[in-house]
Amino acid sequence: MTGISALPIGVFDSGVGGLTVLRALRAALPSEDFLYLGDTARLPYGTKSAATVARYAMQAAEALAARGIKCLVVACNTASSVAIPALAVRLAPIPVIGVIEPGAAAAAQATRSGRIAVIATEGTVRGGAYPRSLAALAPHAVVTQKACPLFVALAEEGWTDGPIVEAVVRRYLEPVFSGDAAPDTLLLGCTHFPALVAPIRRIVGQGVTIVDSAETTAAATAAQLARLGLQRAAGIGAVRMMATDGPERFARVGSVFSGEPIAASEVELVDL
Amino acid sequence: MTGISALPIGVFDSGVGGLTVLRALRAALPSEDFLYLGDTARLPYGTKSAATVARYAMQAAEALAARGIKCLVVACNTASSVAIPALAVRLAPIPVIGVIEPGAAAAAQATRSGRIAVIATEGTVRGGAYPRSLAALAPHAVVTQKACPLFVALAEEGWTDGPIVEAVVRRYLEPVFSGDAAPDTLLLGCTHFPALVAPIRRIVGQGVTIVDSAETTAAATAAQLARLGLQRAAGIGAVRMMATDGPERFARVGSVFSGEPIAASEVELVDL
Repeated sequence: MTGISALPIGVFDSGVGGLTVLRALRAALPSEDFLYLGDTARLPYGTKSAATVARYAMQAAEALAARGIKCLVVACNTASSVAIPALAVRLAPIPVIGVIEPGAAAAAQATRSGRIAVIATEGTVRGGAYPRSLAALAPHAVVTQKACPLFVALAEEGWTDGPIVEAVVRRYLEPVFSGDAAPDTLLLGCTHFPALVAPIRRIVGQGVTIVDSAETTAAATAAQLARLGLQRAAGIGAVRMMATDGPERFARVGSVFSGEPIAASEVELVDL
Repeated sequence: MTGISALPIGVFDSGVGGLTVLRALRAALPSEDFLYLGDTARLPYGTKSAATVARYAMQAAEALAARGIKCLVVACNTASSVAIPALAVRLAPIPVIGVIEPGAAAAAQATRSGRIAVIATEGTVRGGAYPRSLAALAPHAVVTQKACPLFVALAEEGWTDGPIVEAVVRRYLEPVFSGDAAPDTLLLGCTHFPALVAPIRRIVGQGVTIVDSAETTAAATAAQLARLGLQRAAGIGAVRMMATDGPERFARVGSVFSGEPIAASEVELVDL
């Protein structure tokens, strides 16, 4: 199994938001190599139909599998919500891990009142994957969903705080978090949203637990690799980045999510 | 030439913003039939590279040409700014009309001070098509460009006025329109932006002429058809709509730009 263990972990997202998941994966698995693919030519997935997103996700997964990976992490919430079963069948025996189940498990564990709010893109909300997953894990939980599409545009523009961002956050979230039956747990169901966590925290208040899927997905990936005996004992943690469009924009906007600068010259342009 | 004259006019956009152009075309040419194609599966074009946009535009143009059109109007600013020459070669002898030249001509005619501001998507700004076109029409004009990507997200969300929209408009435009050398003409270089014209007007003031490409493009199309003897004398003005993704979202968001309700059942789903 040495040969397989040495392969990189594939990480796929519609764009650069998944770099928050990559960041958490690198922290949890510092010896592993990673191959990241952002489908920037066709983003955003969040406003597209389930059939289209599933088709795009399959093409991206096949492109990563063709380059040799030992595990696929679908960092995109929209793709995770519609494509995981089909991807798992196509890529078998390569394990496929999405962000929905780990995020839902963390939210189910965090809530005390049983009232959980999920914020995500239109596509993820419409698909209903989080409520389904939460219903299985916490059958008595009351789940409120709210699509917050402008959060994506704000994060991509690099506007992550300030009066405009706070006003947008207030408009989306104040109706959800007012009243006696307000949720005590907020699940960030889109990889772009952690970039706005400071204004989100101010609007929802200190009493709400904010759960983001990145860390729980990284933990789930580490557990899965250990279970399969595929963890790498030692390595330098190399990262290769690929995008389906404009390495310059990927590098610029990606740096917001990655937590460290990305050089456009490090990003390989690929066609799916 | 009766056969050709009876064909519809093809209108292509990355999504639903081009419906503002379709609306102006229908007003200018009430006897003509129209075939509208929105490439909603791959929108937005505004953040994508020139090569990718040119490839998508070619596929869309070929899909329309294959269905039989007498003229192609490229309603998307980003596609117009990078793809018109290649489209004209491929579709010849079908005439191809973009929104850049008509918009630039109207702005060049409107300005008294010679100072023109162009607001558009990142892709259109980066491509520089408006400054190039304005340099040819008004060589002494001073052109300022400003990318306003959040305007697209706001319009698609249906947030077309109010304190948040006004704050975003102020953040983008106040620096451009302050000082003694402020432009006297503002060219809306994106089909989404007419939806936000009320707050834009408040921020730039009454003294600024706001030019939108939709009406000037419709006039240019009418003139081109007349020149080629392709105008239709009588007709009911039928419109067929096609989209590459989700007819429901096309109908819902499209109604913001179309000025009249669109039923999802009227929108045909096509694959490019």
